[in-house]
Amino acid sequence: MLNNITNVRGFKCWGAHMGIKSKRRDIALIYSEKPASAAAVFTQNIFCAEPVKLSREFIKNGKAQAIICNSGNANACTGEKGRKGAVAMSRKTADLLNLAKEEVLVASTGLIGEPFPTENVLNGIEECVDKLSDREMAGSLAANAILTTDTYAKEGFTSFKIDETEINMAGIAKGSGMIHPNMGTMLAFITCDIAISPKLLDEALKEAVSESFNMITVDGDTSTNDMAAILCNGMAGNDEIDEKDEYYEKFLTHLKELCVHLAKLIVSDGEGSTKLIEYSVVNAPSQADARQIVRTVSNSNLVKTAIFGSDPNWGRIIAAAGRAGVPFNPDKMDLYIGSSANKSIQLLEQGQPVQDGRSELKKEMESSTITIIIDLNDGTAEAVGWGSDFSYEYVRINAEYTT
Amino acid sequence: MLNNITNVRGFKCWGAHMGIKSKRRDIALIYSEKPASAAAVFTQNIFCAEPVKLSREFIKNGKAQAIICNSGNANACTGEKGRKGAVAMSRKTADLLNLAKEEVLVASTGLIGEPFPTENVLNGIEECVDKLSDREMAGSLAANAILTTDTYAKEGFTSFKIDETEINMAGIAKGSGMIHPNMGTMLAFITCDIAISPKLLDEALKEAVSESFNMITVDGDTSTNDMAAILCNGMAGNDEIDEKDEYYEKFLTHLKELCVHLAKLIVSDGEGSTKLIEYSVVNAPSQADARQIVRTVSNSNLVKTAIFGSDPNWGRIIAAAGRAGVPFNPDKMDLYIGSSANKSIQLLEQGQPVQDGRSELKKEMESSTITIIIDLNDGTAEAVGWGSDFSYEYVRINAEYTT
Repeated sequence: MLNNITNVRGFKCWGAHMGIKSKRRDIALIYSEKPASAAAVFTQNIFCAEPVKLSREFIKNGKAQAIICNSGNANACTGEKGRKGAVAMSRKTADLLNLAKEEVLVASTGLIGEPFPTENVLNGIEECVDKLSDREMAGSLAANAILTTDTYAKEGFTSFKIDETEINMAGIAKGSGMIHPNMGTMLAFITCDIAISPKLLDEALKEAVSESFNMITVDGDTSTNDMAAILCNGMAGNDEIDEKDEYYEKFLTHLKELCVHLAKLIVSDGEGSTKLIEYSVVNAPSQADARQIVRTVSNSNLVKTAIFGSDPNWGRIIAAAGRAGVPFNPDKMDLYIGSSANKSIQLLEQGQPVQDGRSELKKEMESSTITIIIDLNDGTAEAVGWGSDFSYEYVRINAEYTT
Repeated sequence: MLNNITNVRGFKCWGAHMGIKSKRRDIALIYSEKPASAAAVFTQNIFCAEPVKLSREFIKNGKAQAIICNSGNANACTGEKGRKGAVAMSRKTADLLNLAKEEVLVASTGLIGEPFPTENVLNGIEECVDKLSDREMAGSLAANAILTTDTYAKEGFTSFKIDETEINMAGIAKGSGMIHPNMGTMLAFITCDIAISPKLLDEALKEAVSESFNMITVDGDTSTNDMAAILCNGMAGNDEIDEKDEYYEKFLTHLKELCVHLAKLIVSDGEGSTKLIEYSVVNAPSQADARQIVRTVSNSNLVKTAIFGSDPNWGRIIAAAGRAGVPFNPDKMDLYIGSSANKSIQLLEQGQPVQDGRSELKKEMESSTITIIIDLNDGTAEAVGWGSDFSYEYVRINAEYTT
């Protein structure tokens, strides 16, 4: 059985095709039968799309009952027409579902600066509301309708218990280019039937995002549009979580796992990606430092092209770490690379080459998963992140995107 | 006549091949017959190579008479042997030229973490000293001997007058990958026969570098090794410049021009580059802001692949500007793109699309030179920078570099 966002109590979905994209579905609706605690985080780009501006206002209430999303058009730099289009999306969805427009979060993804096709989108909303379903197929349609250059839909599901109560949590995500740390840069919509206060939900989402979607990179660019949102409708029947007790921690743990799962799916679908790379920085003075190094190394084009070519040119890794803007002692650094953590080969000890391991390393680097561990030997903090390699295909996809 | 670094009074050069690289010359020597005021700036990477550590010490005297540089081996992460190798380079050169070792600046470029081939380099120094020459051919040999993945040598020459005294200034540079704002990331060696105090020379070099080598990017990576150095031996016979008078300004203007010339040559030779792109940010609140936006946009892989594909996907430019970390009002921004400044097409006015100029723009973008102008309409500061596009060839070169 494929569990997805429709396997969470009270959630229905649909994905329609209204011609914004030439062939694939382009409008997704997620609906909760009951009012839900809601939280969302948004792109930090100064140019943010109309739906982001709107949803950022709506989410202040901490409540929402639906998410409407179109793909194919970003509704960014679209002027007054775009602003009205985003409002119309929320209003149309709300009217058909008997909600206030503030209870409908709005998202868009696609090309920037194109006139927003409001009519198409409104027709798509009608179809989505009409066909809302809790069948798994409906969840998959929604997962497909939010894609752009993605080559597959990203879905995840998990369940756990709060005392005797079973909690279900699921998510869909989108992203294969413009993926970069610091949020934005992708879409993720998570459904859960747990009862939790909006305030704690907001905290939990922020923490989970900081360790998952904010730690992945495909090309270092962030978008005008992207957001991660979660709706928790309480239909599991647990007592509402309103303090940071063991139940909150359990929820947070599973939310992090789901977000990391979705984040890794996004990276694996990175434009032109042939390898999934895990970057760990350990024994760092602070988590912020560790994260900054993970981000800089995972964003290095030279590192990514070397890994694409299975090239044991580890000097590029330390050169990238050294320009991260984080003070550390290079003479303490250890470096390991391998196809997984337990197959990793030590290349640097206390800042000096251990041996000429290039031939052995080259073989390890032919794997489709690569693990890079940077040990600063200067503290106890750590961070982990994920990235893709950099292939000819990335260039092809992005040189031909609009043409 | 090809003027180059040997056309500056009192300078001699050579470039030798000692087998560090398989075929091309790999050791360059630049020598001034008389003591010279000297200044240099270095990579900001935490991992810095042994020659950088050494030259950073030597330059504190503000005097130098020779520059010795090898290519093919970076002498970075090479441990005690590497450290001794760098010292041996300066000492050997100094001994053969009857200088103190502190008067010889040392540089290296190439692969990181490889054992340093001290013997080869010392033999190369002997050959260079032996063959030192002021023929133009010798300057070109030196310009070639500092290259790595470059496809051509970078040279420049300019002359101007201080009252009736003719001043000559010339430079050679290296760099095609690992090029990135914030210094390091390339080599540039400049010779000049002006008389100027070391203190003012240092200020002038820093200012010129900040507007040239620090404003170019090929791939966003910086190296462990790179440096820009200038020797001014006073043999033109002018009264030494020791205050910021009109003569200083004239010198600075020409130094900037020469550095920009060399910087553009480096970008044009960017690994796999097919286009030279000029980025201008105008009417910005501060120069620092303007520079930060230039750097972020010129480093965007999405922008660079779009330009490679002559793809009029200008949304990527504003998305990159919006994530530069600089506060500005997106609703004031104008955007222009074209094959040159006076052929540029306005695409955004006050943050909104002007028209659907995509087809006209596509034609302009097929040019081998591209100009992008971002007008923030919020101040008077400006900055200009240069970058390359991003092609299949970049990926091929960097996936296969060591293998």
